[in-house]
Amino acid sequence: MRFDIVTIFPQFFEGFLSHGIVRRARQRSQVQVSVHDLRDFTYDRHHVVDDRPFGGSDGMVLKPEPIFRAVEALTHPFQYTPLGEDRQAAEQAPVSVIVLTPQGKPFTQAEAARLSQKEQIVLICGRYEGIDERVAQNVATDELSIGDYVLSGGEVAAMVVSDAIIRLLPETLGSATSAVNESFSAGRLDYPVYTRPACYRGLEVPKELMTGHHAEIDLWRRRKALEKTKAYRPDLLRDTAALDALDQKILKTIEAEAEDRH
Amino acid sequence: MRFDIVTIFPQFFEGFLSHGIVRRARQRSQVQVSVHDLRDFTYDRHHVVDDRPFGGSDGMVLKPEPIFRAVEALTHPFQYTPLGEDRQAAEQAPVSVIVLTPQGKPFTQAEAARLSQKEQIVLICGRYEGIDERVAQNVATDELSIGDYVLSGGEVAAMVVSDAIIRLLPETLGSATSAVNESFSAGRLDYPVYTRPACYRGLEVPKELMTGHHAEIDLWRRRKALEKTKAYRPDLLRDTAALDALDQKILKTIEAEAEDRH
Repeated sequence: MRFDIVTIFPQFFEGFLSHGIVRRARQRSQVQVSVHDLRDFTYDRHHVVDDRPFGGSDGMVLKPEPIFRAVEALTHPFQYTPLGEDRQAAEQAPVSVIVLTPQGKPFTQAEAARLSQKEQIVLICGRYEGIDERVAQNVATDELSIGDYVLSGGEVAAMVVSDAIIRLLPETLGSATSAVNESFSAGRLDYPVYTRPACYRGLEVPKELMTGHHAEIDLWRRRKALEKTKAYRPDLLRDTAALDALDQKILKTIEAEAEDRH
Repeated sequence: MRFDIVTIFPQFFEGFLSHGIVRRARQRSQVQVSVHDLRDFTYDRHHVVDDRPFGGSDGMVLKPEPIFRAVEALTHPFQYTPLGEDRQAAEQAPVSVIVLTPQGKPFTQAEAARLSQKEQIVLICGRYEGIDERVAQNVATDELSIGDYVLSGGEVAAMVVSDAIIRLLPETLGSATSAVNESFSAGRLDYPVYTRPACYRGLEVPKELMTGHHAEIDLWRRRKALEKTKAYRPDLLRDTAALDALDQKILKTIEAEAEDRH
């Protein structure tokens, strides 16, 4: 799998490329990650990548030409349909050209799984006030937002998207089950974890985890996971169809107990 | 404002610290960002920071002791109430100790604004299967998740949170209005932007932006912003109270037109 990141700050990614799972996946040649300087795709003497927005407003906008050229050079010989022509065809191509923007579709674990099947992913990092909209409509296959906040640029968002995808590739994580037993995969958050010491400064590990009874431990973990989901992410529990039967039963118990207390 | 990042990969942050707004805010001494190696807070010869989870499961868990010690050393002499004792008091302290985890409260633009008022922010980056839960309950003031996906570690999430906060500090962005006219601040996504050339490969900038009529441009932008929000983020429009009166009126027109087409 190949990643191409287009940015005005290529050095930004050095730490990201040389640590943890990204480093290991690159060493094993499981992924190739290349970082490209957007200014290399300008032809003028000053390597201008931005200009003032039409219609007025503060700040600068990334120009279309260097980005069109970069994507064409990097995706050749892939043929694909851009987002503005046919959204479904754009999503299905073996190459994804992703514009990172707060005005995008939310990036989720399901999107990470979909993108982990691609042959090539090009990530275009915005800066300043944004990217000329002709890029999203005529060159990109996806506009993605990593969350409901605004960043100073798309570089960190490109790291988020690549990291979430790379860790789903086979053999990237230490254990095949690691990517299954986790938040969002089961319709709820993951359970809390504890390690040694069993007592630290008077704070004890919950006794249920020390019993050695697999079923009891599983029950305790599911209950804690559901309690945390209820506290932080009631939105995930609005539709309980994603939960398995045992989780649904435990959730009903938690809710009945909360009723009793009122 | 002071940021302290606790990680097992301190070099991961070099690019982040030396580019864009973070670099500028540091050069102006508006923020101090220090990155700390979690292993410096271990006392054993092998600098062990992780151990197997109680109750069994794959992967390793970050141990409580080095993190407790790091936070105490870094926040001294601040006194604050941890999350597990009193959630509201924890949120109001001048120091925030943030655990980055998919099992957290969603990080949003509103959270970024709240945190931009703090004197100090400590960011604890998880790795492996997670962090011993005693840290979240007894040392942290916040558990934050940057989105509904799973990352291989909290480092990239720590960058997301610090970048979103730092760009809100006064004088960080080029213009004071830049942080107001943007996605999520107005209950909807931001409008698309265009810059020169007016025509590139036959793709023209919308004529409404070329008129020079401020009111017409504003109307076009609001309409496009609302259309994009409707397409990608219908959830933001479920409660339209956050929209101003003109946006509410335009949204009704868009919806009436969609009805007519059916």
